[in-house]
Amino acid sequence: MLRVGIVGARGFTGEELIKILMRHPGVRLTYLSATLTKPEEIGEIFPALRDVVGLKCEPFNVDKAAEKCDLLFLALPHTVSMDYVPKLLKRGKKVVDLSADYRLKNPAVYRQWYHKAHKDIKHLKAFVYGLPELYRERIKKTGCVANPGCYPTAAILGIVPALVAGFGDKDGVIIDAKSGVTGAGKKVSPEYLSVHVNENFRGYKFNMHQHSPEINQELSRATLARVDVVFCPHLLPVNRGILETIYIRLKKSVPAQQVEAVYKKFYKTEPFVRMRGLGVLPQLTDVTYTNFCDIGLVVDEKKKLLIVSSAIDNLLKGASGQAVQNMNIMYGFDERTALA
Amino acid sequence: MLRVGIVGARGFTGEELIKILMRHPGVRLTYLSATLTKPEEIGEIFPALRDVVGLKCEPFNVDKAAEKCDLLFLALPHTVSMDYVPKLLKRGKKVVDLSADYRLKNPAVYRQWYHKAHKDIKHLKAFVYGLPELYRERIKKTGCVANPGCYPTAAILGIVPALVAGFGDKDGVIIDAKSGVTGAGKKVSPEYLSVHVNENFRGYKFNMHQHSPEINQELSRATLARVDVVFCPHLLPVNRGILETIYIRLKKSVPAQQVEAVYKKFYKTEPFVRMRGLGVLPQLTDVTYTNFCDIGLVVDEKKKLLIVSSAIDNLLKGASGQAVQNMNIMYGFDERTALA
Amino acid sequence: MLRVGIVGARGFTGEELIKILMRHPGVRLTYLSATLTKPEEIGEIFPALRDVVGLKCEPFNVDKAAEKCDLLFLALPHTVSMDYVPKLLKRGKKVVDLSADYRLKNPAVYRQWYHKAHKDIKHLKAFVYGLPELYRERIKKTGCVANPGCYPTAAILGIVPALVAGFGDKDGVIIDAKSGVTGAGKKVSPEYLSVHVNENFRGYKFNMHQHSPEINQELSRATLARVDVVFCPHLLPVNRGILETIYIRLKKSVPAQQVEAVYKKFYKTEPFVRMRGLGVLPQLTDVTYTNFCDIGLVVDEKKKLLIVSSAIDNLLKGASGQAVQNMNIMYGFDERTALA
Amino acid sequence: MLRVGIVGARGFTGEELIKILMRHPGVRLTYLSATLTKPEEIGEIFPALRDVVGLKCEPFNVDKAAEKCDLLFLALPHTVSMDYVPKLLKRGKKVVDLSADYRLKNPAVYRQWYHKAHKDIKHLKAFVYGLPELYRERIKKTGCVANPGCYPTAAILGIVPALVAGFGDKDGVIIDAKSGVTGAGKKVSPEYLSVHVNENFRGYKFNMHQHSPEINQELSRATLARVDVVFCPHLLPVNRGILETIYIRLKKSVPAQQVEAVYKKFYKTEPFVRMRGLGVLPQLTDVTYTNFCDIGLVVDEKKKLLIVSSAIDNLLKGASGQAVQNMNIMYGFDERTALA
Repeated sequence: MLRVGIVGARGFTGEELIKILMRHPGVRLTYLSATLTKPEEIGEIFPALRDVVGLKCEPFNVDKAAEKCDLLFLALPHTVSMDYVPKLLKRGKKVVDLSADYRLKNPAVYRQWYHKAHKDIKHLKAFVYGLPELYRERIKKTGCVANPGCYPTAAILGIVPALVAGFGDKDGVIIDAKSGVTGAGKKVSPEYLSVHVNENFRGYKFNMHQHSPEINQELSRATLARVDVVFCPHLLPVNRGILETIYIRLKKSVPAQQVEAVYKKFYKTEPFVRMRGLGVLPQLTDVTYTNFCDIGLVVDEKKKLLIVSSAIDNLLKGASGQAVQNMNIMYGFDERTALA
Repeated sequence: MLRVGIVGARGFTGEELIKILMRHPGVRLTYLSATLTKPEEIGEIFPALRDVVGLKCEPFNVDKAAEKCDLLFLALPHTVSMDYVPKLLKRGKKVVDLSADYRLKNPAVYRQWYHKAHKDIKHLKAFVYGLPELYRERIKKTGCVANPGCYPTAAILGIVPALVAGFGDKDGVIIDAKSGVTGAGKKVSPEYLSVHVNENFRGYKFNMHQHSPEINQELSRATLARVDVVFCPHLLPVNRGILETIYIRLKKSVPAQQVEAVYKKFYKTEPFVRMRGLGVLPQLTDVTYTNFCDIGLVVDEKKKLLIVSSAIDNLLKGASGQAVQNMNIMYGFDERTALA
Repeated sequence: MLRVGIVGARGFTGEELIKILMRHPGVRLTYLSATLTKPEEIGEIFPALRDVVGLKCEPFNVDKAAEKCDLLFLALPHTVSMDYVPKLLKRGKKVVDLSADYRLKNPAVYRQWYHKAHKDIKHLKAFVYGLPELYRERIKKTGCVANPGCYPTAAILGIVPALVAGFGDKDGVIIDAKSGVTGAGKKVSPEYLSVHVNENFRGYKFNMHQHSPEINQELSRATLARVDVVFCPHLLPVNRGILETIYIRLKKSVPAQQVEAVYKKFYKTEPFVRMRGLGVLPQLTDVTYTNFCDIGLVVDEKKKLLIVSSAIDNLLKGASGQAVQNMNIMYGFDERTALA
Repeated sequence: MLRVGIVGARGFTGEELIKILMRHPGVRLTYLSATLTKPEEIGEIFPALRDVVGLKCEPFNVDKAAEKCDLLFLALPHTVSMDYVPKLLKRGKKVVDLSADYRLKNPAVYRQWYHKAHKDIKHLKAFVYGLPELYRERIKKTGCVANPGCYPTAAILGIVPALVAGFGDKDGVIIDAKSGVTGAGKKVSPEYLSVHVNENFRGYKFNMHQHSPEINQELSRATLARVDVVFCPHLLPVNRGILETIYIRLKKSVPAQQVEAVYKKFYKTEPFVRMRGLGVLPQLTDVTYTNFCDIGLVVDEKKKLLIVSSAIDNLLKGASGQAVQNMNIMYGFDERTALA
């Protein structure tokens, strides 16, 4: 029985991790911590989990965490995770980090986007970017996974086949992304008040979102070329789910069927990517509460444009579901365990 | 006192027209009709209007309509309006048609997108496309206005300055549009049930929406060139409001300030277009329940891309508000009357 | 032209007051203040009001307020208003106070429910409780109005005819109230985050809400007997609107028609109370964005029970709309001005 | 391996049954039927279930159903189930019927509330009312279960301890119930359109809802006295969840602690009823997506009133979850299997 713990158990992704891990037959949840002054029943923090999870959430203690767990999920804010990781790695623990801290390989880029110098450059290289569709073999062998961001997961999965196949123009990628509010974490600020979200919709951080460099890094690695996408996120008045409409200029006119064939082949054996037929557009509710990424394609042969509609649940395939998928791969469980 | 009537008073745009016209000091609402078997109190149809509007809604009778009104607003479904218009024009009435029937100048294009042959080609030319920002002078002199579609209003206002100024590439325009549910009219079909809209989001009719040819027609007229945009609409889980994120390739790198200056100048004297500062993105609630179109601009000089965020209330600037704005222009009222 | 100002212009009720007063033909909005460090354009605070209201919102200055205004609306939090009122009254200004500070006539009761000693007991008596349906004649003659709370407005209007007529049992009144989030004011706290309100519903402060003593005070005054209701509020996942389902035990079996007749007579000449037929239940959208209180009645003659469904917009009839209605009465304007 | 089928697999409760049964380790889902002209992949009907459920949904065929299944869940509309049940019982199958058809023991009452004569009176008696908290022992031994309605489940669980303990006055029970839209089934009618549900709230069928006689029947059986509650349902703008605020007059003043003790004892060993502390009110999201019924209590000793707040997920504890709970009991599985 694999013993796992969650650091940062009180946030949205922590809550989802608890729910998923509770139903994983190969795992025992042995440790929950959060920024608390004293231990609290998890059923007090999340009333929905009363009588379900018989575990207290306690202030973080690295020795206790190390003693109780083989693997730790870090569901911490960006720039915080890097304080915890070295201590856990030092004690020989495996980690899946859900923050952004170990995703960007270049510390200068990290500093530019997260406004803090990286404190644990030493371990940056060891971390594998936890997108199984690209790095499954490396995830199998690693002890530390940098779990991808929510926007990047939907974006990379939607774009990479077209760029790798060569017909997508790496200089002509525009991502118009829309996310539910849990994507932003549990921020108590006026713009996330119900009265400001409900019946509202808006773009934000056009061309300035910290997930841009992550998308660019991974698309560049996959294509061995410098990719620099346009990324414009928007806030949807829903709790969960991301839908990205991605416009990819084609280098030449490519028949729609050929585009579809490339995508289908790329994801043929993937358990959590579902290609929807040509012209079929996924909707949020097709993927919310699941670990799937659903992808629909529209090809305008005349205008030489591929339009990809890529949808995920930001808390599952975009965070906690993917984290468990990575754990399943690391430990040789069936990749779908607790996720389907 | 101008006597006005509404044909199709039971739909969303009819309801909004009633509310606006009730507070117009220069107008008397004298006639309301809808597809009914017998007259009904408007307060029975819209309980919110009980004790406010003392008028019955009755089955349409052209003679009565003509006798009671100087001007008629047609708030009818597409392909239905063209049955009513000739009869009203024949009786010397003025009309503002909120349907699509008189917007497209080319009957073949109309047939292609609305799947019906046009029945009143004779009057097509007489109709002025009712976008005051482009056609105010012609609206002043006409007796028949084709009120623009909701998506086209936000799109054309967001795009036309860039194309007319010459720096926007007419072959590089992508419109990622998001609309609340009232944009579709009062359709009782499964996809508009609360349970399928709420907590959901989806694209639809990518590259196949009937508002594409309308946008193309108007941008082509404004630029004297053939414009063919990419138009991808999405359905938001909100009642009202449209926000369009528009990507316009620039022919060359243009300084952001210069782009902004062009837009500001274009709309300098417009009462219902509000330019928001560079980098300021409007949100739906800035414009819902108003007749404003709010426009924000982001310029990526390096990538030669202009991103426009254009927001309107689909029932006001995108339909009934603009219809009354047109009426105000036609009759010499202050353009803001009953709208600000 | 009456010169009016708003103190506390940045909250929900302040915003509504601005919108209503802007369209009032007999009023000029001359002063807006809020807790700010320096003056700000109202269009910066509420982007929807850009280019509509050409007024700055400034830090409160009593001399300026007094100089610029004949009447001031105080849209301040509870326990704050009583700091401002004496200063304004001293300068001979009229005030309509939207807070709870001058509603409860008994300072001990005020202290018990608002957890602060009253600082301006001297003026308590002078204030008229601003429910026109009960106190119109006194409002006409007063210079200071305590504008009723939102829950109490819907409750009192729904209950008072049954108690005054004598068939309602004053010891058998249960109010099951449901309110949208703006009822709570602009509180930035976790329970009002979108993610905690959306797709959720809950009761709160059963039997412990500070509006209970207000309801009891007014029902007791109206019946000359001690009324002590059961009041259970709930939070709806909507922005605005209150619907109360009120259960009133009948002293004896009374025919439904007779009950209806009593209510109809009570509200016969009221411009803003609409009796809906027997068995017709109002919905929120019948009254949101209006100043109406809609009342439906269901009588169970066998069980001797009257069920009243009373609906208002908490920001209009429940706050700012009623405040302007009171102003209209105080100054002899038609009571509906700017409100219908 | 127990072989189970679902008749009426396309509705809300059918969809939930599929999801629950898919993760039940002791069950194989072998048959899905619905009103279709030809078989359809379940992944086409519910895109979220693509690649998850490899089963076709087909037109109902009683012989095939009987051949493939040991137990059938009937997720059919009221008045339809009774056409299917006799055929399945005749073939020796066990059934859990989610419709109302076998809940009411008195055919005259059934006719009065469902406006149709009962067609299968013969089997009425054999059916056990599937509320495990009251009838667990009988469910263990039966082959046919009438699964309770959603409103009645929350109501009966909230009321029965107070009445059975004797302090609750059976003539003084008022249920103010609020439900999400899925409670009404998948009805394509105007009142369930997003635009009419969203930002809205309303009561309906006060004192006239077909769940009243079901609540009365069960409370009467439990107390061996004639109980006749007041039941007023309301429609919430949420997808799922029921919260009922129940007012129970007390025969005499009872200490709050004693009331709580009675409830705690009543549900002490129940796996799916969670008593929340005195004065703690459950919210919808504490129970949605779970099979729990959460109950909060407020006692007003002075007014001799018990206020119960009872919350469930209408699709789980109020329908499909409870149906599987019943199946678990019938077949000796751990009652929580697939439900916790």
